[in-house]
Amino acid sequence: MFAMGTFNYRMGDNPLSIHVVNKMGYEEFIKSFGNVVEHCSLCAAAVWRERPFRDAENLASCFGDFIDRLPISGKEGILRLHPDLAGRLAQAGQLTSESTREQASAGLNTMTEEERQRMTNLNKRYTQKFGFPFVICARENKKDAILRGLGERLENAPQTEAITGANEVKKICRLRLLDLVKPDSQLNSPL
Amino acid sequence: MFAMGTFNYRMGDNPLSIHVVNKMGYEEFIKSFGNVVEHCSLCAAAVWRERPFRDAENLASCFGDFIDRLPISGKEGILRLHPDLAGRLAQAGQLTSESTREQASAGLNTMTEEERQRMTNLNKRYTQKFGFPFVICARENKKDAILRGLGERLENAPQTEAITGANEVKKICRLRLLDLVKPDSQLNSPL
Repeated sequence: MFAMGTFNYRMGDNPLSIHVVNKMGYEEFIKSFGNVVEHCSLCAAAVWRERPFRDAENLASCFGDFIDRLPISGKEGILRLHPDLAGRLAQAGQLTSESTREQASAGLNTMTEEERQRMTNLNKRYTQKFGFPFVICARENKKDAILRGLGERLENAPQTEAITGANEVKKICRLRLLDLVKPDSQLNSPL
Repeated sequence: MFAMGTFNYRMGDNPLSIHVVNKMGYEEFIKSFGNVVEHCSLCAAAVWRERPFRDAENLASCFGDFIDRLPISGKEGILRLHPDLAGRLAQAGQLTSESTREQASAGLNTMTEEERQRMTNLNKRYTQKFGFPFVICARENKKDAILRGLGERLENAPQTEAITGANEVKKICRLRLLDLVKPDSQLNSPL
């Protein structure tokens, strides 16, 4: 599908101080944060102009503000760059490493055959109705909550649902950023 | 740098009819048109909702409209996903195939050492002033016009220059789309 090569994703084992982040040129910034919004490096490329960032939460807010300011078509576009939950990509082992870990944390890799079938059916109906895949912050939900949310959100109006999906993208993005940037590192402190 | 994997880019030797384009699901659409705006598959992901497209020109207009509706930070972001003209990437042979052909058509691959030095210096000043690289539609300009344009555009105000750059992106995007989609194929004709 649309796997986009390897980003310099640090996976949280060597988080950056905000001072290092604030000194990055845009190429390095895009390499480091180009996949905090799945497959959508435009977000990092746009947000770079907002530096210096106060801390990791402020950086996350800047990504959120950029997503909020996109027209509905852009919010939908961001959703279309996301993989189906527990879908073909996961089965084929082609998810980004971020998505693989996130889906595993929700227990999506240990679904029974019946659960997988239910999720596949709901996903299919969802994508047919809205024209974009169901996106939910898997790290904040377990598989039961995800299945329930999928059923509920199927009833939403398309415009509402694009915004609901974009808000989930913002949660995923924030958690990915908190993995990458030291949470206690602040602009006006030496950390 | 931020090379984004392989798109299913058809290079004009087997252009698509608009009917085939209009039948594509979003995954196939993103694969086919994900790089008509360099490294920015969000544009294709957003534009898919506008189908059916009347013809290749209408498709190009939809991409243009999406770029126009982005906030200034998004236009700047698109520019930051572009390589420097005749810059490090070209010298390292890491440009996308589309960019390689476009830069060659402008004669940028046959610059003298002096011309290359001048362009490198101007590019450096441009990027330092604006925080994004100089983008120009290389297929509509030869190297002399490009060098002249670079010098002139260096004088622009930052906000003006982001819009000027985005307009060049739209020209590049249109020419790439006209390579991919049969120009005489129309929604209401059998072609």
